[in-house]
Amino acid sequence: MLGLMQQWPLLCHKIIDFAARQHGHREIVSRSVEGPVVRTTYAALHKRARQVAQRLERDGFVAGDRIATLAWNSARHMECWYGAMGMGGVYHTLNPRLFPHQIAWIMNDAEDKLIFVDLTFMPLIEKIAPGVPSLKKIVVLTDAAHMPETALPNVVPYEEWIAEADGDFVWREFEENTAAGMCYTSGTTGEPKGVVYSHRSNVLHAMMAAMPDAMGISSRDVVLPVVPMFHANAWGLAQSAPMVGAKMVMPGGKMDGASIYELLETEKVTFSAAVPTIWLMLLQYLEETGKELPHLTRVVIGGSACPRVITQKFRENYGVEVIHAWGMTEMSPLGSLCSLKPEVQDLSGDALFDIKQKQGFAPFGVEMKVTDDENGERPWDGKTFGRLKVRGPAVARSYYRGAGAEQFDEDGWFDTGDVAHIDANGYMQITDRAKDVIKSGGEWISTIELENVAVGHPEVAEAAAIGLPHPKWDERPLLVVVRKPDKTVGKEEILSYMEGKVAKWWLPDDVVFVDEIPHTAAGKILKTKLREQFKDHHLPTA
Amino acid sequence: MLGLMQQWPLLCHKIIDFAARQHGHREIVSRSVEGPVVRTTYAALHKRARQVAQRLERDGFVAGDRIATLAWNSARHMECWYGAMGMGGVYHTLNPRLFPHQIAWIMNDAEDKLIFVDLTFMPLIEKIAPGVPSLKKIVVLTDAAHMPETALPNVVPYEEWIAEADGDFVWREFEENTAAGMCYTSGTTGEPKGVVYSHRSNVLHAMMAAMPDAMGISSRDVVLPVVPMFHANAWGLAQSAPMVGAKMVMPGGKMDGASIYELLETEKVTFSAAVPTIWLMLLQYLEETGKELPHLTRVVIGGSACPRVITQKFRENYGVEVIHAWGMTEMSPLGSLCSLKPEVQDLSGDALFDIKQKQGFAPFGVEMKVTDDENGERPWDGKTFGRLKVRGPAVARSYYRGAGAEQFDEDGWFDTGDVAHIDANGYMQITDRAKDVIKSGGEWISTIELENVAVGHPEVAEAAAIGLPHPKWDERPLLVVVRKPDKTVGKEEILSYMEGKVAKWWLPDDVVFVDEIPHTAAGKILKTKLREQFKDHHLPTA
Repeated sequence: MLGLMQQWPLLCHKIIDFAARQHGHREIVSRSVEGPVVRTTYAALHKRARQVAQRLERDGFVAGDRIATLAWNSARHMECWYGAMGMGGVYHTLNPRLFPHQIAWIMNDAEDKLIFVDLTFMPLIEKIAPGVPSLKKIVVLTDAAHMPETALPNVVPYEEWIAEADGDFVWREFEENTAAGMCYTSGTTGEPKGVVYSHRSNVLHAMMAAMPDAMGISSRDVVLPVVPMFHANAWGLAQSAPMVGAKMVMPGGKMDGASIYELLETEKVTFSAAVPTIWLMLLQYLEETGKELPHLTRVVIGGSACPRVITQKFRENYGVEVIHAWGMTEMSPLGSLCSLKPEVQDLSGDALFDIKQKQGFAPFGVEMKVTDDENGERPWDGKTFGRLKVRGPAVARSYYRGAGAEQFDEDGWFDTGDVAHIDANGYMQITDRAKDVIKSGGEWISTIELENVAVGHPEVAEAAAIGLPHPKWDERPLLVVVRKPDKTVGKEEILSYMEGKVAKWWLPDDVVFVDEIPHTAAGKILKTKLREQFKDHHLPTA
Repeated sequence: MLGLMQQWPLLCHKIIDFAARQHGHREIVSRSVEGPVVRTTYAALHKRARQVAQRLERDGFVAGDRIATLAWNSARHMECWYGAMGMGGVYHTLNPRLFPHQIAWIMNDAEDKLIFVDLTFMPLIEKIAPGVPSLKKIVVLTDAAHMPETALPNVVPYEEWIAEADGDFVWREFEENTAAGMCYTSGTTGEPKGVVYSHRSNVLHAMMAAMPDAMGISSRDVVLPVVPMFHANAWGLAQSAPMVGAKMVMPGGKMDGASIYELLETEKVTFSAAVPTIWLMLLQYLEETGKELPHLTRVVIGGSACPRVITQKFRENYGVEVIHAWGMTEMSPLGSLCSLKPEVQDLSGDALFDIKQKQGFAPFGVEMKVTDDENGERPWDGKTFGRLKVRGPAVARSYYRGAGAEQFDEDGWFDTGDVAHIDANGYMQITDRAKDVIKSGGEWISTIELENVAVGHPEVAEAAAIGLPHPKWDERPLLVVVRKPDKTVGKEEILSYMEGKVAKWWLPDDVVFVDEIPHTAAGKILKTKLREQFKDHHLPTA
């Protein structure tokens, strides 16, 4: 027996329809690439998104076409997303921090037909475009007055391009599992892999993201997504903010402490989201200037583990609550958020910050488990860690063109590649990447925990732990250390410092000192390179 | 091009799976029909719901079977819902306030196969059951020790019945448009009409209901749904509370001021929902006893228009925010909630309460418009009223067996039968029922507004406005008034009192005085009877 409720497909353009209808006067404020801070509204954005859709169709683009963007967070970028989706196209965000050849590879894999480009990235697209034969048009997100000189063909200014359409456009109708967007993950190994979001997954993800125990945003919030739209959908904010009618503040390309502070202050931002680095810059700026944060109430921090000091300073010095979060491009991206359940809400001091160091719990719509290598479920005891696997309506079921099939279990779970433990209250904490975790005598050692303990030593600047082959234990830890300038700490001092802070059998079998540890473009330790570098290192215990 | 996200159907049992997994220790506290307040948890409820599902299957019930309930709000009632839904059955809530012959008609229309009954309603089911041939089993929501004597066949006590199943049951899988529940609407005219909820509509409705600008509930809330599960799904709380892991407090059959207060106080309830009558009783109790409401922060009030005095007293005397709401059984039921947008959040005094008198705005997932009789859309100006029509994934597309087809427009909108206006900020206010509104010279007169103004006269106890036929204007208003005891107010005094408070052409053409105005069982004015009573009344202007 079927229900008798309306067929109302979950389509992304309904979000912007809603925002325009119910919150039409609410502002979207953007720091433009041209310079000035510019203001628009959901009603205006709604109209311009329809102009984009109409213009795309007039130019011959059709449903299913991948429409790339290489742009900062701005109202124009959002217009392009909603316009592309509303005619059945697929927005495809490109990460400008990748190498040009990587971006070209990704564009060719996706077969992008058109690209919206910020002025900032004209030099970049000039390098890339000639190697992307599918690309028919380049729309520069500016007006004719600001158009740069370029030798590329088929380049038009955005404002004049959409001005040729009047916005009298009815969104195309299609089923909710239609592709809405794409984003490629770029790991440290292998080719990038494309994630293809659907309208349904984007809408459900936006609903999940807005719920009180997730981001908890309402029409009374002023939301500043520092996290880029090209970085896992700005964590869903380009959809969940209009879904609740929140005012948005878009930082454009300026994410230094002073620039972010200026927006927080002048626009009375109540809620923001970014990676830890951004917040370190802001906190430093606040400390240098003595400024305060009278409007801001919550920040979501993810992308990498949030240092305890950020959470503490925000709370104790500025009255801002940090919501630690974890997610992945493959999860749209939210996987867990560290809001407080009643079991922990009355904690204070270290006990509270211990909870806030965790990446939080999965909202309704994300199922989560930790397993051993044989897919056996591990207990939720806050210490037994295992491979973190997830399931849900906004989680990928495969990559584009079938890449990376090994990450998808037969029973429908996605293997995140992270290693984590979950406590009895459901709070999850990432302890490692699966490819980094050290397997010693059948048990797992977290390299991240070893590193966190090691950098607590006052003479250690940075530390990286890797597993080296061992005849008896399969693998044993090697700790690679960069000393602080002019410091002389040695192996024995570090090991005795670590003793008692980790299980005895976790203690590294050897410690080596280097001048520099290799990093990825995103600032993460490049363990593949480190393992290569030390592949012939002989552990004294081996 | 399709998205590549997981197939994860929106099924109601995933809500209770989530609550058990992430909020397993959270309590559901119920005032039992047997007397004492009893406590359970989501983890326990989850297990018992699976026992229900397992037992239903063992007894031969199958997917699609309608499983009726005639019960107060309690954890047991929730177990029955989730158990029935989890084996593919369809919960069917019956309203015990209807006449026995109406309930029997509804049960026969739905062809209910089994019924879960509270002890309170044994006398009622004894009258009804013999006339419902489809009914195979009656499960009394108690244990053997409390079982009443009954002459009915196939009657078993709930506790012993589920004890025969161990709960080792895997929820059945089916597609998300499968029927999950039924509820009949009973208007003042015609036969009751069945609404059939789907798993998808229930899940999406629960997500919409939990959002910050709707009910805004989190795991830190303690939720007391006074509104019965048999009254439009307890406004979705039996689904949205477990979806966010909120503690629940279930009032059973006792809804007087002292009983509700006791639960609010001892269980530290933060959030509640009920019709205005309940809150009038509570406020009266508080005034008599001098007690306060230190824990309660928000109450949602709907079912009928919330008198201004309730909103004011809650805010000014007890620090509790009233969220005025409107909905219908056909809408699962939430249609709009009066939370504050930034445009109005800084209002105070009368200007604030003027907003709070409105039924609020539609959340994402509810589309709303007001139209004239030719389906032409009317402006959102806060005064032009029209037929209120809605659309959304949790709105009915038809009634069971095709009843009431005229309420469903060809373009997919549901005609609510209400008349309303919507202001520029999206705030909707119900002004009448479509069948009651008076059409005078092509323009509409709101009978509710006439009545509200008339009862403002100090000597008027109650007033009802109806339209009577008029040779020139089609219809003109007649005001029917009940005087307060020993008062003598006359027609001219009332008319001059109303002058200036409504448009001149709205003033009633005549005023008559009666001892009593007829009401429905739910306390609403029975206008059909009133129109019948005055059908031969001659208006002096006619």
